Amino acid sequence: MYKAKVTVTLRPSILDPKGKAAHHALQNLGLNEVQQVRIGKFIELDVDAKDEAAAKAVVESACAQLLANEVMEDFEIVIES
Amino acid sequence: MYKAKVTVTLRPSILDPKGKAAHHALQNLGLNEVQQVRIGKFIELDVDAKDEAAAKAVVESACAQLLANEVMEDFEIVIES
Repeated sequence: MYKAKVTVTLRPSILDPKGKAAHHALQNLGLNEVQQVRIGKFIELDVDAKDEAAAKAVVESACAQLLANEVMEDFEIVIES
Repeated sequence: MYKAKVTVTLRPSILDPKGKAAHHALQNLGLNEVQQVRIGKFIELDVDAKDEAAAKAVVESACAQLLANEVMEDFEIVIES
């Protein structure tokens, strides 16, 4: 059993209204040191595969088909055993 | 300027309906190797601080006050320069 950690982030050119709202709220709380906020997804998957490469292939397929929107988002996969 | 990467995850005892829905959808796509899915948040912050410790303190404060709900969620902070 492998554990996959996936971070899905909006591409830099895409506006992030959720991040903008969080940034604004942090400024209202007095945390003016924060210059920018961008919010993405962090997805943990348990994958049953025979080796790390097979696990990574499954997770890549899951990201491409469902978990990330490749038009607007990038994803990064880390596999742990 | 420091870059902070924050992962916010639901505590293990908390139900994750978003993750359950994603798991179900992956099974419908034939990705039966995936045994469990949990979905959290990945937040990137640019922080203007004099050193790494100061940047971390700002981000911890941001997480505790706004970005994470500590009743249900855990967060992990990584600071990069």
